[in-house]
Amino acid sequence: MIIPDYIKAMDAKDRLAQKKDEFVSDSSLVYMDGNSLGPLSKHTQKHVSKVLRQQWGEDLIQSWNKHAWIDLPNKVGEKIAPIIGAAPNQVICCDSVSVNLFKVLSSALQLVPKRSIILSMQGNFPTDLYIAQGMSNFLGKERCNLKTVSEENLLSELDDSIAVLMLTQVDFRSGKLLDMDLISKRAKQLGVIVIWDLSHSAGALVLELDKCEVDFAVGCGYKYFNGGPGAPAFIYVNSAIQHRVEQVLSGWMGHKAPFQFDPNYQAASGISKYLSGTPNILSLAALDAALDVFAGVDMHHIRAKSISLSELFLQLIDDADGLSILTCVSPRVASDRGSQLSFSHPDSFALCQAMIAAGVTVDFRAPDIIRFGFTPMYQSFADMWVAVQTLESIVSAEVHTDPIFQAKQKVT
Amino acid sequence: MIIPDYIKAMDAKDRLAQKKDEFVSDSSLVYMDGNSLGPLSKHTQKHVSKVLRQQWGEDLIQSWNKHAWIDLPNKVGEKIAPIIGAAPNQVICCDSVSVNLFKVLSSALQLVPKRSIILSMQGNFPTDLYIAQGMSNFLGKERCNLKTVSEENLLSELDDSIAVLMLTQVDFRSGKLLDMDLISKRAKQLGVIVIWDLSHSAGALVLELDKCEVDFAVGCGYKYFNGGPGAPAFIYVNSAIQHRVEQVLSGWMGHKAPFQFDPNYQAASGISKYLSGTPNILSLAALDAALDVFAGVDMHHIRAKSISLSELFLQLIDDADGLSILTCVSPRVASDRGSQLSFSHPDSFALCQAMIAAGVTVDFRAPDIIRFGFTPMYQSFADMWVAVQTLESIVSAEVHTDPIFQAKQKVT
Repeated sequence: MIIPDYIKAMDAKDRLAQKKDEFVSDSSLVYMDGNSLGPLSKHTQKHVSKVLRQQWGEDLIQSWNKHAWIDLPNKVGEKIAPIIGAAPNQVICCDSVSVNLFKVLSSALQLVPKRSIILSMQGNFPTDLYIAQGMSNFLGKERCNLKTVSEENLLSELDDSIAVLMLTQVDFRSGKLLDMDLISKRAKQLGVIVIWDLSHSAGALVLELDKCEVDFAVGCGYKYFNGGPGAPAFIYVNSAIQHRVEQVLSGWMGHKAPFQFDPNYQAASGISKYLSGTPNILSLAALDAALDVFAGVDMHHIRAKSISLSELFLQLIDDADGLSILTCVSPRVASDRGSQLSFSHPDSFALCQAMIAAGVTVDFRAPDIIRFGFTPMYQSFADMWVAVQTLESIVSAEVHTDPIFQAKQKVT
Repeated sequence: MIIPDYIKAMDAKDRLAQKKDEFVSDSSLVYMDGNSLGPLSKHTQKHVSKVLRQQWGEDLIQSWNKHAWIDLPNKVGEKIAPIIGAAPNQVICCDSVSVNLFKVLSSALQLVPKRSIILSMQGNFPTDLYIAQGMSNFLGKERCNLKTVSEENLLSELDDSIAVLMLTQVDFRSGKLLDMDLISKRAKQLGVIVIWDLSHSAGALVLELDKCEVDFAVGCGYKYFNGGPGAPAFIYVNSAIQHRVEQVLSGWMGHKAPFQFDPNYQAASGISKYLSGTPNILSLAALDAALDVFAGVDMHHIRAKSISLSELFLQLIDDADGLSILTCVSPRVASDRGSQLSFSHPDSFALCQAMIAAGVTVDFRAPDIIRFGFTPMYQSFADMWVAVQTLESIVSAEVHTDPIFQAKQKVT
């Protein structure tokens, strides 16, 4: 495909262009789903192979000390910390986002024992709502009651009757970005504990958790952090409150001295108390290595390129007559969205399948959304051109030969 | 080291002898710590490399369907099921033992709403006790109250005031084996829900969960199943009660239709409701491949060889004059113990270090126990001879040159 000169010029000026070489990649593929599963870096492949063959294969049980497996949850947490604007000793890596949300919710409720309402948004990622529902069923509504509101009503519903405000910073469907600083500080004024789910923002946006005075956050290792399918998640707990909280999933790794085998639980001091069971080393090792791609990278550069990629993409869509059938459901102002653009169309599912078949990986979110993720570490501006051209050719071909319909037949 | 003929003859008759070839192993190492971390199989190494390079590296997000990642928790569960005496659709693999214990405890309490006592043993593995303590603190003692008793008093304390009986089948220190059938059936008669932690027995013993009418069980993927450091754990829920229970960590993967992104949690039917967050694919893939070592293996043969190994080991210890300084704290009757032998000695820690330095991997458990694990898949009878000879030479050398003292200096 011929790439226009002005787009080539954008790539020539891209200070992150060399980063792509750090990934295992098929040059014929345009991958726009790093917001769902990040790709494998060459270093990750090498490191996991080494952990597998040498550390586990040869050094076996000795590796817990010899290769400091026991420290990996903290080590990986400390690699994540600067990427999300956190000073040391506040981030740890373990378990899944769902399980970690349960832990931080249990801590948050403990801080406001006279309140019971968890306020969230109707469009929040389902697992966040499900975890709060599970906790509510378990504790009883008098101690934990989930209330969801629309984004428009969020600030007006936030008052001093609320125990916990639990939000996802970037909406998984629309990519709409919430104002973390404004909302966190408003919550703080009202004595509301705030939990941010950063699954759709960590590694893509400039985050300043400490500066925004966030209480708790959780986030995902397998999207923008490229940690591998189902990679461990992370937990941030502001150091100002760590000494005041416990967490309910008090497994042995969160004990202050796990290998003393004390029959009574005594929580570790600091962030380590958020560990529960034995850490999963293969997966932590993958995420550990994957995060090295971020070494020396300024998150402002990542964000700036993400915006440039998405602005170019949006312009190309707008310029393509045939693509007016797609309705943009993301904010058109770049600063109001995360690192994705979403469009609705009645045939989105089939369109996604046709795009994938044509070498542009995108994803579908029910009921009718096609999502394009922007990942500055390994995407080029030329990729945006290829993606839009591909989309246009699929849509225009539909008129004559109905490949969308054909695709639909194939996948359903 | 010269191996006596009668021991060579035992190896020659061993029907599991060829299994050792399936593992990556250093022939100079005697590994007696498979009850803590099982070794890497050749197939596991190959399979994980493939999942890494081809599935994640090349097929990326498509692999959730193309390589059925989404089915792995169930697939791995079904591989574990026959090894623990469970019919299909009752076992799933995910999260850690600690997290899974929390899930099944929440379900168990739901089944007996008028009772609140969780009965366990004082010597239970600490994480089991810690998880129950965490739940008790969270729910309040009127709804969940942990009571621990000595083994001697276990059956006399079991009455119809007890909600849940939570036990580990094999004691991690002594290797003492509890009578699952007797205890489970006694509990059932009293309307007590039973939870077994199989971490120190699954993959080593002949288990018959269905036949013993067990309600719930959890267990470990990284010990006798050789799933890798911190491998995912498993959950068994008897099919007779699956439709009557929910679990509190209701993450999106336990929803009946996760990809419909329904804002309201509706549990999947059957064992899948015990999933919570996104499954960890690299680790599940390792365990999936590791379990293939069990294909076609009769667990009675595993148990028989385990007993033969440990009986030989015990006899060799008894025959060695210099080793009378060790006190056996495991049951001397083979049928009363799991797949380990433990000895106490004031210098156990240093002894362990000296053994490891001499090429025999064993482990130490506070305060004064040295553990020897028996793993018929990759140990030979000759290994038992080498281990005991090594131990004897360390202990006898101590008298003259005090290597134990030296080892102690090195490691502390």
